[in-house]
Amino acid sequence: MFQLLATNQTARRGELTTNHGVVQTPVFMPIATAGAVKTLMASEVTALGASVILGNTYHLLLRPGEERMRALGGLHTLMRHDGPILTDSGGYQVFSLANLNSTDEDGVTFQSHIDGARIRLTPASSMAMQDAIDADIMMQFDDVAAGVSTRERYDDAMRRSLRWAKESKAAANPSRQLFGIVQGGTHEDLRKVSAEGLIEIGFDGYAIGGLSVGESRVDTFRITKMLGAMLPVDKPRYFMGGGMPEEIVYYVSVGVDMFDCVLPTRNARHGMLFVWKGDPAECVREAFARAQDGAADFRIADALYEKVQITRGVFADDTTPIDDHNDGAPTSQQYSRAYLHMLFKIEEMLAFRLATIQNLRFYLRMMEELRKCIAGS
Amino acid sequence: MFQLLATNQTARRGELTTNHGVVQTPVFMPIATAGAVKTLMASEVTALGASVILGNTYHLLLRPGEERMRALGGLHTLMRHDGPILTDSGGYQVFSLANLNSTDEDGVTFQSHIDGARIRLTPASSMAMQDAIDADIMMQFDDVAAGVSTRERYDDAMRRSLRWAKESKAAANPSRQLFGIVQGGTHEDLRKVSAEGLIEIGFDGYAIGGLSVGESRVDTFRITKMLGAMLPVDKPRYFMGGGMPEEIVYYVSVGVDMFDCVLPTRNARHGMLFVWKGDPAECVREAFARAQDGAADFRIADALYEKVQITRGVFADDTTPIDDHNDGAPTSQQYSRAYLHMLFKIEEMLAFRLATIQNLRFYLRMMEELRKCIAGS
Repeated sequence: MFQLLATNQTARRGELTTNHGVVQTPVFMPIATAGAVKTLMASEVTALGASVILGNTYHLLLRPGEERMRALGGLHTLMRHDGPILTDSGGYQVFSLANLNSTDEDGVTFQSHIDGARIRLTPASSMAMQDAIDADIMMQFDDVAAGVSTRERYDDAMRRSLRWAKESKAAANPSRQLFGIVQGGTHEDLRKVSAEGLIEIGFDGYAIGGLSVGESRVDTFRITKMLGAMLPVDKPRYFMGGGMPEEIVYYVSVGVDMFDCVLPTRNARHGMLFVWKGDPAECVREAFARAQDGAADFRIADALYEKVQITRGVFADDTTPIDDHNDGAPTSQQYSRAYLHMLFKIEEMLAFRLATIQNLRFYLRMMEELRKCIAGS
Repeated sequence: MFQLLATNQTARRGELTTNHGVVQTPVFMPIATAGAVKTLMASEVTALGASVILGNTYHLLLRPGEERMRALGGLHTLMRHDGPILTDSGGYQVFSLANLNSTDEDGVTFQSHIDGARIRLTPASSMAMQDAIDADIMMQFDDVAAGVSTRERYDDAMRRSLRWAKESKAAANPSRQLFGIVQGGTHEDLRKVSAEGLIEIGFDGYAIGGLSVGESRVDTFRITKMLGAMLPVDKPRYFMGGGMPEEIVYYVSVGVDMFDCVLPTRNARHGMLFVWKGDPAECVREAFARAQDGAADFRIADALYEKVQITRGVFADDTTPIDDHNDGAPTSQQYSRAYLHMLFKIEEMLAFRLATIQNLRFYLRMMEELRKCIAGS
């Protein structure tokens, strides 16, 4: 299902074939949390250069629920998205959003953050929900330890996740792809046990979970680089939930293939835009070269973008385009910063949409250029 | 500037030439209150069949203000709208939104509903602001009496509006069109004095103001019919701020040419959709025939639409399109009611957008068909 097309040092250029088309990697996957990439239609997300869209199992389990999702024909039908869909397992949201009641060896019991309803999630029920969503790529159900947990907690969660990996595989609809998730916090030995255990079970791809959850960026980079070097070369690697553009450039340089992150869309809604420093091809080429040279993260960022906080007063009179260099986002080249500033001041929904388009296109364009950097074309 | 092309009994089909193109009347003008038709780009509003877009002088005076609006090149430039723009005078919003301090013979003093700033609006300053917006069609500054006011208050406001009409004309940039506004509440004699006074001054068009503000629909219809019969045939007539589809069909049948209303967009944001009863051409033909026959308003409505409150539970499982008949609104034909229901439940911005598209297209399509009913084509 995954074909490695080219490498550049440890960076990889590949093709991932799914039930809904071929994905060019490295790839960034916009997040349609509860059935929509906020403010946008699926066709618009695709027009910005996206292929895979990510759906959140936890949110869709609460609304519309498994039975109704199945009856409605799944998320492709609802969103009218013909491309691939990847779903997470719900595990992370249970820990971060829900009122968690208990974790036992078989699964978790939690209360919905919407209506307080008591819900049970297990490897088998997570697979069933992801199947109802009609996901092309499913994630194993995992136990996510994060933040100030002890080594014992990380060890315990990692071993439980390994057991759940096996149970997920046993329960998964084999016509869909299934990824295992490496856990173990910032402990290299635990990460190694996790990765080896998953490889032994055998998955269509391997995700790096439990990072970008509050640890220092030095630790994130260290663990990601270590896993980039040890995960199977013939399977895609997916860094879950990260990150800033400079982080993604770094992760790509150490061999990661797939990414998702709320930053481009969430920051957009707060008026924070990623704006190209110049020609995108040149910016990304320079950033990628710096990442390969082991440059500090802020130096990678410095080659790529300026943060434009469009709500600042200085933009009220700025008649220049939102981002002249962001080709593929016509609205960013057509509308002025003054107009976008004005729309943010009145909290007009169009503001969130124009900003979302700017940031999503920035990320997707960055991936296009990263792919060229690796393939040498 | 206005050419009458055809009539059908008292209904009129015309062409209004402006600095930014020719408008086919009867016309419905979507409202871009503070610089955007909520959730939509101007190009999308145009694609739905709109020609004129309406801007609110009051909102734009508060933000971005006259000086900045002029420096930014006006609303066409900001919104990137090449078609005509009509602006109201700000008078109505001062009375309905602002904290009004005082009305004197020269103008009004009020406090901004945003930051409490003290602002003065006069016929001359209203003209200056509408000029800064770069309006193609401007409205005279008027004194709006509404609701439970006494006859004396209506009389007084009407006569003040007449004086301000003269002052507005004297202050207006003559390269833009200027409309007078007929006032006088539901009192036919006051309306007559107002209309005759305005005609004597001479305007590019005549608006019917101070209706649809709480009076009974019988009174609204009676005054509108009376004015339809007495306003100059060679100038456009504009019913300000109304109304439901059945009202617009009626107003068209008695000779009104131009309309604006928040209903299609505001109702959309509350999940209330106007959905065609069947083929739009047949629906409008039947509704127009009923209006010409003097049918009751609810019978006109009955020929046109069903109200679909998409947030109701019954739509959670409805896989049929939002409105199969609403050609020109592809999203209404592509997305299911179940999906739109789901998006409303999570308060996703895309929900407001899809609903806005449905309702705006309904109104604009209705106007297209009304024009055909009159021209006989």
